[in-house]
Amino acid sequence: MNQLHNIILPEPTLRRLPWYLAYVEILRNKRVRHVSSTRISKALSVDASQIAKDLSFLGVKGRTRIGYEVDDLAHALSEFLGFSRSHKAYVIGTGSLGKALIRDSGLSNYGLEITAGFDVRPDVIARADLGVPIRHIDEIYAAMRDDPAEIGILTVPPEVAQESADIAIGAGIRAIWNFTPYRVKVAEGIVMANTSIYAHLALIFTRLASTGRQ
Amino acid sequence: MNQLHNIILPEPTLRRLPWYLAYVEILRNKRVRHVSSTRISKALSVDASQIAKDLSFLGVKGRTRIGYEVDDLAHALSEFLGFSRSHKAYVIGTGSLGKALIRDSGLSNYGLEITAGFDVRPDVIARADLGVPIRHIDEIYAAMRDDPAEIGILTVPPEVAQESADIAIGAGIRAIWNFTPYRVKVAEGIVMANTSIYAHLALIFTRLASTGRQ
Repeated sequence: MNQLHNIILPEPTLRRLPWYLAYVEILRNKRVRHVSSTRISKALSVDASQIAKDLSFLGVKGRTRIGYEVDDLAHALSEFLGFSRSHKAYVIGTGSLGKALIRDSGLSNYGLEITAGFDVRPDVIARADLGVPIRHIDEIYAAMRDDPAEIGILTVPPEVAQESADIAIGAGIRAIWNFTPYRVKVAEGIVMANTSIYAHLALIFTRLASTGRQ
Repeated sequence: MNQLHNIILPEPTLRRLPWYLAYVEILRNKRVRHVSSTRISKALSVDASQIAKDLSFLGVKGRTRIGYEVDDLAHALSEFLGFSRSHKAYVIGTGSLGKALIRDSGLSNYGLEITAGFDVRPDVIARADLGVPIRHIDEIYAAMRDDPAEIGILTVPPEVAQESADIAIGAGIRAIWNFTPYRVKVAEGIVMANTSIYAHLALIFTRLASTGRQ
């Protein structure tokens, strides 16, 4: 499995793989044994040849007229996407969204283990009862020694987003998952993912406004 | 302002506008009065001519050597993106993530008002104390009569994602914000936005795995 990770997959492929996994998991729960790319194609409206190509990146091949083994495919996808292995993460900024993510136990099913939260406001820290320690941001260096994390989940106010990311990276964090609307910049070699909740909200609001007037 | 919403903005522009807003809000809090596209460009690593083009969609124009009025720009962006107006939403699926989103009061600052949650599991419904009523999914039709919502936030398990979206749309919901890893299909005229948390996790995990081995 491991050498496959040296291939940097194109992002559109990476975006489709979790769709396949979600669909294959549903089939598995229904005790379906085999699935063809044509069937996946119909369910997800993705071209069947694209599916075969995407899955070939994983080294998974379907058999003529039988298709893919559902169990094998689910296993390969989950392994490849990193969902089967635990990855430690800190939440930076324990305001409303940060707390919500700490409370969302569903993320641990996908391999994300939040082990601590950090904030600058002692009142937030004192109030919190979230099942993980909430510490002052200055303690992130000590935390990285005692119980290091790979991922910093950034849920601070936008005006301190860049500075907070810099602190986390300075302490040894290797990936930033940015939930702020601020466009954080990181050095090469640091993994960066933006989950633009506010951009998606804006997309919904503006599309609603335009369809409403037709 | 309103007729501008009849222009369907390209998605990349829509994705950049919240960055500009976040940056301009920071300047406003610092009591900065004017900002040039060059300055925004430097801060966000977006081409200055692209910024000017994006902002021209909003009917906002900078003045030579002075730039944009920060207040006006913040106001125009917030209005255009729909953040200044309240949009009612239901959360469909009050598991871990659904509850987290209901608790995230920050979303209301961006115009999203969650007014109810829906689920099929009475135990989930009974346990919940979230500040909004949590009702059985069958009651969504009645809810749409009494206190209608425009947006359905989909946080159900993937195997019931399509069916839950169909129910919500059947009850009159006009936009689906899909947080499930399932690729939900909707009829034309229904607004659809996917926030692929799991795809972003997969991106982080696979990129970490490849950088770790270099």
